[in-house]
Amino acid sequence: MSLALYTYWRSSAAYRVRIVLNLKGLAYEARPVHLVNDGGQHLKDEYRRVSPQAQLPTLVDGDTVVRQSMAIMEYLEETHPEPALMPRDARGRAKVRELMQAVGTDIHPLGNLRVLKALESEFGADQAAKEAWSRRWIRHGFDGLEALLADGTAGRFSFGDAPGLADACLVPQHYNALRWGVDLAPYPTIRRVVEACQALEAFRKAAPEAQPDAP
Amino acid sequence: MSLALYTYWRSSAAYRVRIVLNLKGLAYEARPVHLVNDGGQHLKDEYRRVSPQAQLPTLVDGDTVVRQSMAIMEYLEETHPEPALMPRDARGRAKVRELMQAVGTDIHPLGNLRVLKALESEFGADQAAKEAWSRRWIRHGFDGLEALLADGTAGRFSFGDAPGLADACLVPQHYNALRWGVDLAPYPTIRRVVEACQALEAFRKAAPEAQPDAP
Repeated sequence: MSLALYTYWRSSAAYRVRIVLNLKGLAYEARPVHLVNDGGQHLKDEYRRVSPQAQLPTLVDGDTVVRQSMAIMEYLEETHPEPALMPRDARGRAKVRELMQAVGTDIHPLGNLRVLKALESEFGADQAAKEAWSRRWIRHGFDGLEALLADGTAGRFSFGDAPGLADACLVPQHYNALRWGVDLAPYPTIRRVVEACQALEAFRKAAPEAQPDAP
Repeated sequence: MSLALYTYWRSSAAYRVRIVLNLKGLAYEARPVHLVNDGGQHLKDEYRRVSPQAQLPTLVDGDTVVRQSMAIMEYLEETHPEPALMPRDARGRAKVRELMQAVGTDIHPLGNLRVLKALESEFGADQAAKEAWSRRWIRHGFDGLEALLADGTAGRFSFGDAPGLADACLVPQHYNALRWGVDLAPYPTIRRVVEACQALEAFRKAAPEAQPDAP
């Protein structure tokens, strides 16, 4: 069964899935879709046939097509259970999903490229205003996430002492935080967990700059 | 085991969880948290001890506390498997999660109260601009969702002929679409599925206006 991933080097949702594929030791064909070139290759009919929402990433697994990064991550966990990237008990799994959503729904959608473009077209936001907007929601989200992690959930990683799906959401968001110049001093648990992740090749190999389509 | 839900009548994330609790036939204690009164009861220390992110909903199941609506929905599915609100195969489950995320990450976060407040404080958005912003992302999201549903996934409901977690995300978003005056003519599949849902008491009982804390 061959896996293919529609990806863009700097898409943080694609970055999550690349981490999971690497942690599972799964080989995949990278199919780059450039979000800026050609007016956005994701907006072309060719890609819309793959993703009606014109969004990255999309996973192709034989004749199964899965869109939405967090759905893809759970799909990979179900179809390739080892190594496990979620705990087995419902309570632990709920905690991991809570941490995933704290990034995936509370932070990431607000700093999305299409949202920043809309701030510009609707409200005349300039580059500085767009960056301040991105920082605002990362800080807001990290305030909550730091508390959720520091309540005893985190071990070396976001949940316990093995890397998992929550880490795969956190690391790309941390990358964006650095990119936008967010002060990370108030988030010692987040910084410590990210450092543990970055020591692993699975995370480093998934980084934007390590992708074949990076400039 | 007693269940309690921190909820607000018009929170669409809480509305999702109420639908799931009703579909599962689970009794629960509603603990209303008013998002507007007292400057926002969710922002008080009392509720922050429950939810460090100061967000609704939160489920309490004995000594387990679960935050984030989609994490709560999956937790209820795992702890109360009957009636099943997700298919059993990985491919079907991925599709349901794709539909959930298409609402939960692509639409809902952008029309959140705190985001609309920030548009006002950062960009001087007035009521009309905030409503236009909300409509914009609902339309954008429904364009994609309609295509995702119309690809053969939807039967009477979002996935096949039984109600499930995808419907529990869709119906509250449809409620918001009506509230903001989105033209729903382009979304025949969404309208048809919502109509099938609204025929069920589990959905009607979860509606904002049916809540004890509705004005």
